[in-house]
Amino acid sequence: MHIPRGTEDLLPEATEKWQVIENTLRKLSEKYHYKEIRTPMFERTELFQRGVGDTTDIVQKEMYTFEDRGGRSLTLRPEGTASVARSYVQHKMHGLPEQPTKLYYIGPMFRYERPQQGRTRQFTQFGIEAIGSDNPAIDAEVLAFAMECYEAFGLKSLKLVINSLGDHESRQNHRKALIEHFQPHQEELCQDCQVRLEKNPLRLLDCKVDQDHPAMKTAPSILDYLNEYSSNYFESVKKHLDAMGISYTVDENLVRGLDYYTQTAFEIMSEADGFGSITTLSGGGRYNGLIEDLGGPETSGIGFALSIERLLMALEAEKLSLETNAGIDCYIVSIGEEVTFTATELTHQLRQQGIRADRDYLNKKMKAQFKAAERANAKFVVILGENEMNEGKAQVKELATGEQTTVPLNEIATYIGGK
Amino acid sequence: MHIPRGTEDLLPEATEKWQVIENTLRKLSEKYHYKEIRTPMFERTELFQRGVGDTTDIVQKEMYTFEDRGGRSLTLRPEGTASVARSYVQHKMHGLPEQPTKLYYIGPMFRYERPQQGRTRQFTQFGIEAIGSDNPAIDAEVLAFAMECYEAFGLKSLKLVINSLGDHESRQNHRKALIEHFQPHQEELCQDCQVRLEKNPLRLLDCKVDQDHPAMKTAPSILDYLNEYSSNYFESVKKHLDAMGISYTVDENLVRGLDYYTQTAFEIMSEADGFGSITTLSGGGRYNGLIEDLGGPETSGIGFALSIERLLMALEAEKLSLETNAGIDCYIVSIGEEVTFTATELTHQLRQQGIRADRDYLNKKMKAQFKAAERANAKFVVILGENEMNEGKAQVKELATGEQTTVPLNEIATYIGGK
Repeated sequence: MHIPRGTEDLLPEATEKWQVIENTLRKLSEKYHYKEIRTPMFERTELFQRGVGDTTDIVQKEMYTFEDRGGRSLTLRPEGTASVARSYVQHKMHGLPEQPTKLYYIGPMFRYERPQQGRTRQFTQFGIEAIGSDNPAIDAEVLAFAMECYEAFGLKSLKLVINSLGDHESRQNHRKALIEHFQPHQEELCQDCQVRLEKNPLRLLDCKVDQDHPAMKTAPSILDYLNEYSSNYFESVKKHLDAMGISYTVDENLVRGLDYYTQTAFEIMSEADGFGSITTLSGGGRYNGLIEDLGGPETSGIGFALSIERLLMALEAEKLSLETNAGIDCYIVSIGEEVTFTATELTHQLRQQGIRADRDYLNKKMKAQFKAAERANAKFVVILGENEMNEGKAQVKELATGEQTTVPLNEIATYIGGK
Repeated sequence: MHIPRGTEDLLPEATEKWQVIENTLRKLSEKYHYKEIRTPMFERTELFQRGVGDTTDIVQKEMYTFEDRGGRSLTLRPEGTASVARSYVQHKMHGLPEQPTKLYYIGPMFRYERPQQGRTRQFTQFGIEAIGSDNPAIDAEVLAFAMECYEAFGLKSLKLVINSLGDHESRQNHRKALIEHFQPHQEELCQDCQVRLEKNPLRLLDCKVDQDHPAMKTAPSILDYLNEYSSNYFESVKKHLDAMGISYTVDENLVRGLDYYTQTAFEIMSEADGFGSITTLSGGGRYNGLIEDLGGPETSGIGFALSIERLLMALEAEKLSLETNAGIDCYIVSIGEEVTFTATELTHQLRQQGIRADRDYLNKKMKAQFKAAERANAKFVVILGENEMNEGKAQVKELATGEQTTVPLNEIATYIGGK
């Protein structure tokens, strides 16, 4: 019996690292005043068709879609923003006094992709959404938060790349220019791009097959088609980033893989040597039409999501390790079967007093129990033998110093706590 | 666009409570020396057919089963033990030096049931498994841990009910007696029970349709069919519980809904007035055949799982609330558009220095910004106006005391930190 292809178990050694990462990201969320939202693992399929976009690879090729026993089409969430936006609309969050509504999520996402290093079919995203403000300052906040998600772990070789995709008007004009530009080359493009040219020509710039086609280099830049509002908006975002002292690079070809983006789009890349070919760590952007598309009022929003799997790869590439602390306070070594009930009682009492404690459950020899105490990274060992037990006492040994003392059973918690 | 039937969003007010619960359960796990394991949200369907049992309601009626794009039959996990056992076998954990292997998990599970109060199609389980010891002391540890999962939140009206289902031999003898007992009444039983009588007569005792049939009351008790080993084992578990001072009731009709249980089985009930008809909070038991069934070596195990949704209902029934602390340290009130970049800079600097800070992003009037600060439960408000900004200063007001001082911008973090 084997785990499904493209998925992985996280065993204790790994989960300890994940806990550190998640706690850090939650603390960052508190610092930036984002609050957690949890949406279900699956949604109605229609949500992603509308919210992520029919022409995206995700919706066309990568979704886990199935019917439930009632015949409804459901899909395991491939990303987080559509679900948060659905929840925002459903719970009428635009009516809340706190605006923008600043939310974060953390949890599994699912995409049916070819499994490879750093890409699993179930992966974990941490993401934030700030919905209800079109102040360029919030764009800068989201970008700063995104960068700190990596800096907080000591990562240094980071690059922030930004672009503007403009508003609806700017995008329409750019779209026309793209069609005019690529039309003469239509038949030289890959099959996907021929479809994209009609449905969503912006997607062309993202194509891995056609990336070396000569027409790509001379393709019209969105930045030349921004109207005044969009252009001013982008300038202001950059000024806010400057105010924070955050450096960035503008890349006019950055378009992001999802249909819903408008105005600010960004990616964080790793420039670490050890990283191999994948350099994009994460990204995000503004999605001013999304809430309306899902049946809510006209509302602007911006968000960001990172994959924790890829964050771990970046840590490895920069040879950074995470501080984990998984030791216990006390291991009870019991000698002889007669003391087993006393060992149970003592272990329980210590735990009741807040001591992280464990004992032997396999009637191991004393030496093997000491080994177990060391593996458990125990600070103290209590040695419980029959004679001393009958006097209501036990030996307590501090492993770091080797100091050993006889302590009455009901004083052990205090003794350990006072050390 | 609506959430799928039988699922729920957890909005920030709720997630703050969930965070407290999860942190508490994780701390308890550390105290009892259980380490986290994470398995995928879905498994091969076969795992649950073999690991949970073909004749259970879960497998027969409640699973979310679907084919992936490669034609493999997958199932969203309906419970946690089968997945952990699969992982134990796959990663050959029986070869690890730490035995028993003590693991915990926390996360979503999925069952297609009729939605009702406290029962959703996606729900959250916290569970523990201790695999690799058949010492009755570990059974008692698991029961103690299970009880503390509720006591840790102040719950009082709790009842621990235990039973023994015996080993294979005891169960076979009991099974024969059950068939002999119910055979004469076969045609009076519900259709499900007629099937159960042949496939798994123990399930009969669990039937809600036939629970008032007179033959139920006189059904043979498993406790009368325990062989010597099983009987001694059960007595020893009780002695360990006594050593811990944990009270319990024996209920010979407790059989649990899963096929894999052997020996010790238990449930925790709430006796709180406000609780309505659902009184079982959670349960668990020993599953000595499971690891072998899944292709591993003969290995004994015991576990326990609780639903966090039902834990929350128990808290409500006993009118207990959870301490949440979601305030921020500082809210920056900015007056006039001229100060927006300075507000950005200051907010960012404060956060860089570890201060939980937020600012206005909607160009609200000063009064509305103060309201926002109060709603954010901010300890301090920084008032940033153009004149003072030009002098590199701002007003800092402590909301609890009303004390207001002029502080240089680059000293605000220190000022707030020192308070």
